[in-house]
Amino acid sequence: MTTDPRFYSRNGPLSLGYLTRHVGGQLPNLADSEIMIQNVESLESAEEGDLSLFCDKRYLDAFEKSRASVVITSHELAKRHPSRNRVLLVSLPRLAYVQIGHLFYPPVALEPGINPTAQLDPSAAIGAGSQIDAGVVVGPNVVIGMRCHIGCNSVLGRGVVIGDDCLIGASTVISHALIGSNVHIGVGVSIGSEGFGFVPNSTGLVRGLRLGRVIIEDDVDIGANSAIDRGTLGDTVIGAGTAIDNLVQIGHNVRIGAGCALAGQVGIAGSTVIGDGVMIGGQTAVSDHLFIGAHARIAGRSGVMRNVAPGESVGGYPAMLARQWHRQTVGMMRLFNRRNNGAN
Amino acid sequence: MTTDPRFYSRNGPLSLGYLTRHVGGQLPNLADSEIMIQNVESLESAEEGDLSLFCDKRYLDAFEKSRASVVITSHELAKRHPSRNRVLLVSLPRLAYVQIGHLFYPPVALEPGINPTAQLDPSAAIGAGSQIDAGVVVGPNVVIGMRCHIGCNSVLGRGVVIGDDCLIGASTVISHALIGSNVHIGVGVSIGSEGFGFVPNSTGLVRGLRLGRVIIEDDVDIGANSAIDRGTLGDTVIGAGTAIDNLVQIGHNVRIGAGCALAGQVGIAGSTVIGDGVMIGGQTAVSDHLFIGAHARIAGRSGVMRNVAPGESVGGYPAMLARQWHRQTVGMMRLFNRRNNGAN
Amino acid sequence: MTTDPRFYSRNGPLSLGYLTRHVGGQLPNLADSEIMIQNVESLESAEEGDLSLFCDKRYLDAFEKSRASVVITSHELAKRHPSRNRVLLVSLPRLAYVQIGHLFYPPVALEPGINPTAQLDPSAAIGAGSQIDAGVVVGPNVVIGMRCHIGCNSVLGRGVVIGDDCLIGASTVISHALIGSNVHIGVGVSIGSEGFGFVPNSTGLVRGLRLGRVIIEDDVDIGANSAIDRGTLGDTVIGAGTAIDNLVQIGHNVRIGAGCALAGQVGIAGSTVIGDGVMIGGQTAVSDHLFIGAHARIAGRSGVMRNVAPGESVGGYPAMLARQWHRQTVGMMRLFNRRNNGAN
Repeated sequence: MTTDPRFYSRNGPLSLGYLTRHVGGQLPNLADSEIMIQNVESLESAEEGDLSLFCDKRYLDAFEKSRASVVITSHELAKRHPSRNRVLLVSLPRLAYVQIGHLFYPPVALEPGINPTAQLDPSAAIGAGSQIDAGVVVGPNVVIGMRCHIGCNSVLGRGVVIGDDCLIGASTVISHALIGSNVHIGVGVSIGSEGFGFVPNSTGLVRGLRLGRVIIEDDVDIGANSAIDRGTLGDTVIGAGTAIDNLVQIGHNVRIGAGCALAGQVGIAGSTVIGDGVMIGGQTAVSDHLFIGAHARIAGRSGVMRNVAPGESVGGYPAMLARQWHRQTVGMMRLFNRRNNGAN
Repeated sequence: MTTDPRFYSRNGPLSLGYLTRHVGGQLPNLADSEIMIQNVESLESAEEGDLSLFCDKRYLDAFEKSRASVVITSHELAKRHPSRNRVLLVSLPRLAYVQIGHLFYPPVALEPGINPTAQLDPSAAIGAGSQIDAGVVVGPNVVIGMRCHIGCNSVLGRGVVIGDDCLIGASTVISHALIGSNVHIGVGVSIGSEGFGFVPNSTGLVRGLRLGRVIIEDDVDIGANSAIDRGTLGDTVIGAGTAIDNLVQIGHNVRIGAGCALAGQVGIAGSTVIGDGVMIGGQTAVSDHLFIGAHARIAGRSGVMRNVAPGESVGGYPAMLARQWHRQTVGMMRLFNRRNNGAN
Repeated sequence: MTTDPRFYSRNGPLSLGYLTRHVGGQLPNLADSEIMIQNVESLESAEEGDLSLFCDKRYLDAFEKSRASVVITSHELAKRHPSRNRVLLVSLPRLAYVQIGHLFYPPVALEPGINPTAQLDPSAAIGAGSQIDAGVVVGPNVVIGMRCHIGCNSVLGRGVVIGDDCLIGASTVISHALIGSNVHIGVGVSIGSEGFGFVPNSTGLVRGLRLGRVIIEDDVDIGANSAIDRGTLGDTVIGAGTAIDNLVQIGHNVRIGAGCALAGQVGIAGSTVIGDGVMIGGQTAVSDHLFIGAHARIAGRSGVMRNVAPGESVGGYPAMLARQWHRQTVGMMRLFNRRNNGAN
C-alpha cells in the first residue's frame, strides 16, 4: 500500500546518505549514499526506491524477498542473515525507521493565525506561529506558547497556560490547567473537570471542594475522549513524557510520574501516586490512595487494590504478582477440567 | 405511555391494509384492512386504535388483556394461543413491529442547506439534500454525499469522504477517514485519531508513524463518545452493517468484519482482526494482533488473550471456552463455600 | 499550598463567629468569635489565620502540630484529644469544612446574557440570570430555567427542558431530555442518544425504535464524557441527588433511583432498574433487565449478572455476595500457592 494523498503529503526524494546521517547509521557500501529514496514501506509492499525495516527474524522470508532499495536493520541481524539486500545498519532499527518516516511525512505545517470565528478574550496571549482554528474559545488570561495548534471548537478556560509546540485536538475542553511544551492532547478530551467528590449531609450529598489544578509536564500525550480531573486541594499531575491512550479516566489528585504508558480505558482513582516508567495495560483499574512503584508493570484488565512495589509485575483482580496470577489461572483450568472430565 | 410531542411527531393514521402490505403480513379477516391505526404501543398501554406486539409467550396474559385494535404476532403463536384479539400474522413479529413503528415515526426530515455559522473550505463538495448544522467545520477537499446530516459543531478534517444518507452526531471529530453510505455516527465520537504508538529511544518515547486511514463501510452504526484510531501503515476497517455501542475503543489497524455487534465500553487493541458476524459483550477487551473467527461470541467483561476460532463462544479472563468458564465459576463457588461452611 | 489566583478567587476574611453560625457549630470560647479567618487549609499547610479540619485520629500528630488559627472537629474527637489548638465543634466535621470552604470559594458568578455567537432558535425560552456561552446551539422550543450556565459549544436539541441553577459543560450534547434543577453535567457528555438496539432481518440489522426520553431529576451530577441513552418506549431515568462519574455508560430505559453514586467507567445495560442509595464502584458492569435493590453496594470491577437484593454487598464476576467473593479470593490464593510451593 501507499499513503493516500488526500491525507498525507510526502517529502523527498531524500538521499540515502542524508537518511543515514540523520539516524546515525552505517552503510556497508559508501557509494550507496547517492541512492535517492522515495518512501518508507513494509517489506512486502516496498518497490524499487523504497526503504523498509527488518527488525525481527520472524520476518526473514519477507526480508529476503523484499524489493525495497534498502532495508534498515541491526548489525546483529545483518550478520546472522546475510542477504543480497542493501542494508542500512543501526543499533535501534525500529527507532531509525520511525525517524526516517517522519522525514518523509513531516507534521502538517501550521497555518499561523487566528480564525475569525474563534472567540479570544482580549487578555489572552498567543505566542508567535500558533494556529487557532474555527470555533475555538479562549478565556481571560489564557497564555498559549509558540507554534501551538488549537483544534476546532476546543475551549480553554480562564487562566489556562499552554507551553510551546503543543497540539490540542478539536472539541477538547481544558480548564484549571498548566500544560508544558510539546504536549499532544487528542480530540474530545476533558482536562480540569471537577471529578467525583461528595460529602454526605442529612438529606443527600454536598459537592466537595475543588480548589486544585491539573499540571501536565512536557512531552505528554493524551488520547481521544479521556478525562483528567483537577485536584481538590493540591494538584493532579501527569509527569514528563508520559503517554495516555484513549478513554482513560484520571481521578482528582492522582500523581503520575515521568515516562509512564497507560493503555486504553484505564482508570486511576483519586489520590493514587504512580512512579516513573510504570506500564499499565488496557482497561485496568487502580484504586484510590495507592502507591505504585517506579517501573512497575500492571497487566491489562487488572484491578489493583494494594500498593505495588517498584519494578513488580502484577495482574488479576485483586491484582497479585504476575507469577501467582499465572499459577492460579493455570491451576484453575486444570482443577476444574480434570474434575469434570472425570465426573462426566 | 404515549410519545412526547416535544420530541417526536407521529404520522398517520395508517390503514391496517397498508401496514400489512408494508411488512408482507397476513390478515385472517380481510375486511380488517379498512381499520385505521393511530399508533404503536405496548400491550399494556395500547388503546383502541393502537397496534401492538406479541412475540413471547411470557406475555400471554398481557396479550389477552390488551385493548390494542390489532396485535402483530407469528403464525405459530397465533395457532397456540387463539384469542379474541385481532392479529396481523408475520414470520418475524419483532421486525415487523419495528418496521411499522418507523412508518409512524419516520426520521426527522432534513432541512437541506448550510448553516451560515458553518465553516466550509471552498474546495469541499456537499451533495444535494444534505444539512450542515451550526458551527460545523469542513476542511479542504472533503466530499459529503446526498441527504447527509452533519450535526452541530462537528469537524470533518481535510480529505474526509462521506457517502449518502449518513448521520454525523454533534461534536464529533473525523479525520483521515473514508465513510460509506447509511452510516450513523453518534455524538462526541473521535474517528481517525493518532492512537497509541511509541518507539523507545534513549531518553523516552518517540511518536510512531501514522500514515493510514479509517475505512467505515456502509450501514455501520457507531455510538456516542467512542474512539476509532487510524492505521499506522495500512488502515483501520469497520465492515458493513457492524454496530458499535457507546464509549468503545478501536485501536489502530484493527479490522472488523461485516455484521458484528460490539456492546458498550468494549476495547479492541491494535492490529486485531475480527471476522464477520462476531458478537462482543460490554466492557470486554481483546488484545492486540489476534484473530477472532467469524460468528464467534465473546461474553461481556471478558479479556481475550488468544485467537478465537470461528463460531466459538468464549468468556472470562483470560477468555476460555464458555463451558469451561462456566465450570470454573460453578466449581469455585462449590469448592470454597463447602470448605468454609465445614470449617466455620 | 495555597490556591492559584489564576483559577480561584477567594472571599473573606470572614469572622469565626459567622462561620460558626453558618455550620451550626459551637465555639468553646465565645470571645474567639471575633477572630478573622483568611482561608481553609490542610493541617500541614495551614498558617496563622487559616481554618483547618481534624476528622480522623490518624492525623492526630498533624492536628497537634498545626499552625491553623482554628480547627474544625467533632465533640468526640475534641474530648479524646484535648490540645492547645483552638477548635470549632460540630457533629459532622467534614461537611462543615466543605460548607465553610464554599463560603471562601463561592461558585464563579454568572455573567448573564447570550454570547453573540450562540445560535438560539427564536422559539427557545431562556430564564432570567442565565449565561449562554460562545458557540452554543439551542434548538426549537427549548426551555432553560433561571441562573443556568450553558458552556461553550454545547448543543441542546429540540424540545429539551432544563430547570433552574443548572450547569451544562462545554461540548456537551443533549437531546430528548427533561432535566430538573441544580443539575451539573460535565463536559463532553452525551444525553439522549439513540443507544444500541437492533432487530435482525434476513440481510442484517434494522435500527430499533427510539421513542422515549431521558429524565434527569433535581440535584444530579454527571461527569465528563459520560453517555446516557434515551428510552426506546418509555424513559431512561436518573433519580434525584444521584452522582455519576466520568466515562459512565447508561443504556436505554435504565432507571436509577435517588441518591445513588456510580464511579468512573461504570456501565449499566438496557432496562436495568436500580433502587435508591445504591453505590457502584468503578468499571463495574451491570447486565440488562436486572433489579438492584435499594442501598445495595457493588464493588468496583464487578460484573453483575443477577438481581441484587436491597442492602446486599456484592462483588466479583459473576458478582456474588461480598463475603463469598472474599472467600474465593483468599481460598484460591492459598490453594494454588500452597500446592505450588509444595510441588516446586
